[in-house]
Amino acid sequence: MAMQVDLNADMGESFGPWKMGDDASLLTTVTSANIACGAHAGDPDVMATTMGIALQNGVGIGSHPGFPDLQGFGRRRIQMPTGSLQNSIRCQVGASLGMAAALGAKVRHVKLHGALGNMTSEDEDMARACYEAALSVDENLIVMVLAATAQERAVRSLGCKFACEIFADRAYNDDATLVDRSIPGAVIHDPKVAGQRMVDMVKAQAIITDSGKHIETPIDTICLHGDTPTAVHIAAEVRSALEDAKITVTQFAGRTA
Amino acid sequence: MAMQVDLNADMGESFGPWKMGDDASLLTTVTSANIACGAHAGDPDVMATTMGIALQNGVGIGSHPGFPDLQGFGRRRIQMPTGSLQNSIRCQVGASLGMAAALGAKVRHVKLHGALGNMTSEDEDMARACYEAALSVDENLIVMVLAATAQERAVRSLGCKFACEIFADRAYNDDATLVDRSIPGAVIHDPKVAGQRMVDMVKAQAIITDSGKHIETPIDTICLHGDTPTAVHIAAEVRSALEDAKITVTQFAGRTA
Amino acid sequence: MAMQVDLNADMGESFGPWKMGDDASLLTTVTSANIACGAHAGDPDVMATTMGIALQNGVGIGSHPGFPDLQGFGRRRIQMPTGSLQNSIRCQVGASLGMAAALGAKVRHVKLHGALGNMTSEDEDMARACYEAALSVDENLIVMVLAATAQERAVRSLGCKFACEIFADRAYNDDATLVDRSIPGAVIHDPKVAGQRMVDMVKAQAIITDSGKHIETPIDTICLHGDTPTAVHIAAEVRSALEDAKITVTQFAGRTA
Amino acid sequence: MAMQVDLNADMGESFGPWKMGDDASLLTTVTSANIACGAHAGDPDVMATTMGIALQNGVGIGSHPGFPDLQGFGRRRIQMPTGSLQNSIRCQVGASLGMAAALGAKVRHVKLHGALGNMTSEDEDMARACYEAALSVDENLIVMVLAATAQERAVRSLGCKFACEIFADRAYNDDATLVDRSIPGAVIHDPKVAGQRMVDMVKAQAIITDSGKHIETPIDTICLHGDTPTAVHIAAEVRSALEDAKITVTQFAGRTA
Repeated sequence: MAMQVDLNADMGESFGPWKMGDDASLLTTVTSANIACGAHAGDPDVMATTMGIALQNGVGIGSHPGFPDLQGFGRRRIQMPTGSLQNSIRCQVGASLGMAAALGAKVRHVKLHGALGNMTSEDEDMARACYEAALSVDENLIVMVLAATAQERAVRSLGCKFACEIFADRAYNDDATLVDRSIPGAVIHDPKVAGQRMVDMVKAQAIITDSGKHIETPIDTICLHGDTPTAVHIAAEVRSALEDAKITVTQFAGRTA
Repeated sequence: MAMQVDLNADMGESFGPWKMGDDASLLTTVTSANIACGAHAGDPDVMATTMGIALQNGVGIGSHPGFPDLQGFGRRRIQMPTGSLQNSIRCQVGASLGMAAALGAKVRHVKLHGALGNMTSEDEDMARACYEAALSVDENLIVMVLAATAQERAVRSLGCKFACEIFADRAYNDDATLVDRSIPGAVIHDPKVAGQRMVDMVKAQAIITDSGKHIETPIDTICLHGDTPTAVHIAAEVRSALEDAKITVTQFAGRTA
Repeated sequence: MAMQVDLNADMGESFGPWKMGDDASLLTTVTSANIACGAHAGDPDVMATTMGIALQNGVGIGSHPGFPDLQGFGRRRIQMPTGSLQNSIRCQVGASLGMAAALGAKVRHVKLHGALGNMTSEDEDMARACYEAALSVDENLIVMVLAATAQERAVRSLGCKFACEIFADRAYNDDATLVDRSIPGAVIHDPKVAGQRMVDMVKAQAIITDSGKHIETPIDTICLHGDTPTAVHIAAEVRSALEDAKITVTQFAGRTA
Repeated sequence: MAMQVDLNADMGESFGPWKMGDDASLLTTVTSANIACGAHAGDPDVMATTMGIALQNGVGIGSHPGFPDLQGFGRRRIQMPTGSLQNSIRCQVGASLGMAAALGAKVRHVKLHGALGNMTSEDEDMARACYEAALSVDENLIVMVLAATAQERAVRSLGCKFACEIFADRAYNDDATLVDRSIPGAVIHDPKVAGQRMVDMVKAQAIITDSGKHIETPIDTICLHGDTPTAVHIAAEVRSALEDAKITVTQFAGRTA
């Protein structure tokens, strides 16, 4: 079978008069868009606009819930009771589904944002609680997980559809965690390097760590960052490197194993 | 055919640690609940709890969107662009649908809250815009309208399912508007009086104004207030007066004419 | 010198249409009021009303900042950068001072709320950062601290004016921490018992723990809870027990040692 | 006496991770900064940063309250009761004063933002209510008013210190209102044209309307927009045109007549 991979990016993170990222450009490159739900970023107008362009471009629409903390952009860890967190996620995913329905579109996947993503990649129970909440709203959602983390263990135990994700621009430690941003080389800024790394990892179906170790994992989608100055450029370069290597860039179907 | 009418009340208006109304008691009396969506009142936990009790009691669940203004409880008029207002309603209704789905319940109807309700009872275009937004999320929603106002004209022009509503505890002017609260007698405090009025109006299928004029209108549902000290008492009395008069208290089916 | 002690309670915790506590009643009993600043509770109207009554009753006005988290009522721990937390406190205290000035009143003291209070009673550096922020707005504020905790150590190292606080209705462990609420007897519900305990501790100038151990500490003020059904009753009983024991109930002056 | 005028711009309008305007650049050109208070824009961190740079550059710090409506950026008219609006302004001004005090700075002036500015330029009573609220927090604040509008009439009736403002980049009607943005020429985009207009008006001490009519008014300060792509360029050009015409660019002292 020919190799394939999806490209995803966080989007719809503008708010009111404040712009963030160049969604319209990125939506010509990615195949899946993780669209903020208004809790950590985004507002109803931004959701409508972003989903509209995604729909027009055939980009898969994802719900991207985060902690309800606009000033902190969902990046501050908040100690919420599990039930409250689940209800917040239900409402956020519901808002995504409602807006998509209004546009004649469909929400295909769900991905957790920021601190919620970080905490659930370390805590399988928390990940499972969050995913159960999203799936209780729509059991057909494909859950996008950070490959080889507690998130992946959670979806496997749930038996739902999922897609495994790696980062285009981050170096990995030997335990599949990300190299801390404070360490030189943790973030890859050179689009060519990022592109080649992604080709290598997709071909290997493994995370290749800084030490050269291969951590076997399905690789269904590659996360591109949307809010950096070079985002659009890196995205285009990664896509082009993949295509040059005969790796088809297309939406994931969702796996259960 | 035997006469019937629905009883509705606004609910789920608590927020965080702050309680409002006695939802659990009212949910033993009403047949439809208009549940706040988190914009003017309510939060995800409150929505979950309120919908859960409604489901358990067989009470029809409604989405109750309002202006995004928590401190003002949705009672302050806000000059929002029509498109922004529609997108806000889409997200609020979406959140309702999402939470209901998570609970294995269904949202049957939609009703506008506070200043949004007042403005749309005066402005048919605005009413139509709001209802189109809600119906774009789910075309099967029954729209609850203030009988004989611009809201009713809007749903008739849209051709959607609707239910006509009158107030149990408010006096009417000859043009079907409510007597201003500053005028003595505008608000009916005596449960017996409220009960008898409702029996009279439902039997007449007309709003009976202060002057005794009859304004013919379908009467599908009666609005009970949930946030007054006497709310539970008036609700019980109205229900009992209707039942004594052999008027069946049950959910509306939604009409298109 | 005759013994004296202050009585304080959290106040101004209503929000928009939602009421919390019976501030008007409590303000006839306490001598200091910790008034929410709009971040975890309270809004500008509530602040104005509460400060107005406090001023009229000669009750000392305090600024009561908390985490910016309305739904969570400031009770959820949020991982904020220290600088952001300090700036939030500066704005909250500034709002208090502004409103007090508008009413011809003065803010005398500051006390941290909820999760912010709990975290700073465990973490001296965090306590110092928060207090420095408040004092940078007004260096004359008296800082109310939980006696014998990291909060007290922080103010002593800062050299600012402070007042030491104990709880009227909570049992203490031998290390001056509160007995966990899950343990029987952790919360004292009997007003008579609460009153006698306070008399004993003030006379001993010590926290008397469950085991009978005395932890010596200045006791400048006693915290009464404002948001429980029995709050007003306990408050009155504690005050009366103190007065019967010839302990003068009056505002603290602030100490530096 | 040598002619002089102040240059002001709205600032501190970033929020959380969202940037707006190039405050650091503008703060090298203007002499007064209107800094958002967190209700319609800005947050405690943004306030701290912006005030800090203003202080360092010797730029006059102003409090810039607006409607509490972040998504709408304070540009949506909200029907708030007068007392609530006043309390909101008191808290916003208080937060400004608190943050300034923490930085060792001082708030010199106050200016109303967005819809609040527009409404008060049409409604003298509303303007007076807003200004009274701000002055109740600090009676020494200089109130910045739109010259020849209801705002100016309000401050004259209050007897407080004020400064009259005109726009650098907007055309005027013969009644001193701004030409509607939908009309060609309403907004001046050419920096040279803007600069020359300002020189002409300051020299004439009059608003010069599109028809050439002169409306006599003190001109104490010129408003530069901060959030347009050309903002920094227009600001520099206006300043340089004024200086070339021997008009000193310096802070207003505040007038009472």
